[in-house]
Amino acid sequence: MTAGGASDPAAATEGRPAARGLFVTFEGGDGVGKTTQAALLDEWLTDAGRTVVRTREPGGTEVGLLIRDIVLHHRGEIAPRAEALLYAADRAHHVETLVRPALARGDVVIQDRYIDSSVAYQGAGRVLGREEVRDLSLWATGGLLPDVTVLLDLDPAAARLRLDADDKPFDRLEAEKEHFHARVREEFLTLAAAEPERFLVLDAARPSHELAADVRARIAGLLA
Amino acid sequence: MTAGGASDPAAATEGRPAARGLFVTFEGGDGVGKTTQAALLDEWLTDAGRTVVRTREPGGTEVGLLIRDIVLHHRGEIAPRAEALLYAADRAHHVETLVRPALARGDVVIQDRYIDSSVAYQGAGRVLGREEVRDLSLWATGGLLPDVTVLLDLDPAAARLRLDADDKPFDRLEAEKEHFHARVREEFLTLAAAEPERFLVLDAARPSHELAADVRARIAGLLA
Ligand SMILES: Nc1ncnc2c1ncn2[C@@H]1O[C@H](COP(=O)(O)OP(=O)(O)OP(=O)(O)O)[C@@H](O)[C@H]1O
Ligand SMILES: Nc1ncnc2c1ncn2[C@@H]1O[C@H](COP(=O)(O)OP(=O)(O)OP(=O)(O)O)[C@@H](O)[C@H]1O
Ligand SMILES: [Mg+2]
Ligand SMILES: [Mg+2]
Repeated sequence: MTAGGASDPAAATEGRPAARGLFVTFEGGDGVGKTTQAALLDEWLTDAGRTVVRTREPGGTEVGLLIRDIVLHHRGEIAPRAEALLYAADRAHHVETLVRPALARGDVVIQDRYIDSSVAYQGAGRVLGREEVRDLSLWATGGLLPDVTVLLDLDPAAARLRLDADDKPFDRLEAEKEHFHARVREEFLTLAAAEPERFLVLDAARPSHELAADVRARIAGLLA
Repeated sequence: MTAGGASDPAAATEGRPAARGLFVTFEGGDGVGKTTQAALLDEWLTDAGRTVVRTREPGGTEVGLLIRDIVLHHRGEIAPRAEALLYAADRAHHVETLVRPALARGDVVIQDRYIDSSVAYQGAGRVLGREEVRDLSLWATGGLLPDVTVLLDLDPAAARLRLDADDKPFDRLEAEKEHFHARVREEFLTLAAAEPERFLVLDAARPSHELAADVRARIAGLLA
């Protein structure tokens, strides 16, 4: 959490005419540590004088909240393509009104989940195709991909223990859910393998401060 | 409006194991006579014993109304792609929960505006591309195109007079709108030219009963 040294982002941007924006996303299953790492990166960058926009969809846009309301209050009754289109609409509005303006100002945008989550969860669920979900998201965002995506990779059972200290044995429904989360994990790893330059894959079982240091090293390299 | 004669749809379906569904859309600018012709076709088919589902988007689905609510109450503040995605979500839900089930039952679905309106208005407005709007709609609907699309073609000034008896000269804003509606008309004609088998293009300046007879003749041919 020190902001000095070789990886100081303030030093990296010194003397340049204008900071350029950077779009960083954190991905991975529930409980892998996304919020923890996003907060640590935010703190490091802010200490170093960068303006950081921390966000997630629906990201506080009024339209996004209304859309999320529809999806959540009609779960199970919405046609799968309609649901995917609603999430894509939320993403389109969020990117256009929040992410792109922040990047244009030179801010760092740190976002909790993005296109890769949509593709990984859809791929694991197998209702719609991965490719079509990706294409839809890319159309929605005008092709905006993150500069860096940190994938926090963790065994779903271990992540579950982090979220729920109670470690009673899984019943059948929970075992099925576990199977689904294992597929989500594989989907994320497949996505990361396909775009090794964008992804930083970390073993999320490691201590938080070690993971944070790896994230900082990667970001410092991009700000330099 | 007579249901007998050579074009009687009841006669056409006699002796067949099950009526097959038919999807008919009416397209054209405001005031060209879509509602009038949809009602006349509905009456003719219903008299002949067919089950008709008359619909339009949002088509009475609760999700559709909520979506339309967002679009209408935030007009001007929604990113263009988000708005297109919201309309596509409405269409996806409407097709999946209302149109496809009706067609599967063997009903005739008569819908006021569909994909062609989205493409024609978007094409005339030039914010998003025609092809991407069409692709989005086709993805939303799982590729469901109408069996017949009746395009009621009319000079926008004439259509405007039908909707508004007051024929004061246009001011500049109205002239701009008129120009836009002229482009919409051209877009519709271009779409019809590209798919001559699906489209029935009618000169909507003709009397209603003549237009209705042409529509019936085309539908009777498809039910036979
Ligand atoms: N590297 C780590 N080692 C051990 N525990 C961790 C680590 N990172 C985070 N945790 C703990 O795991 C729990 C979940 O972390 P966090 O909320 O950051 O995950 P998340 O991915 O944001 O979860 P969610 O998907 O629920 O938003 C928290 O109690 C957090 O303190
Ligand atoms: N062929 C016709 N000749 C003359 N008037 C017509 C004809 N068809 C419809 N009208 C009249 O034109 C007006 C608009 O017709 P209608 O409501 O059917 O059009 P529409 O395309 O559904 O309009 P909107 O886009 O507003 O829904 C009505 O007053 C109707 O009676
Ligand atoms: Mg979190
Ligand atoms: Mg009408």
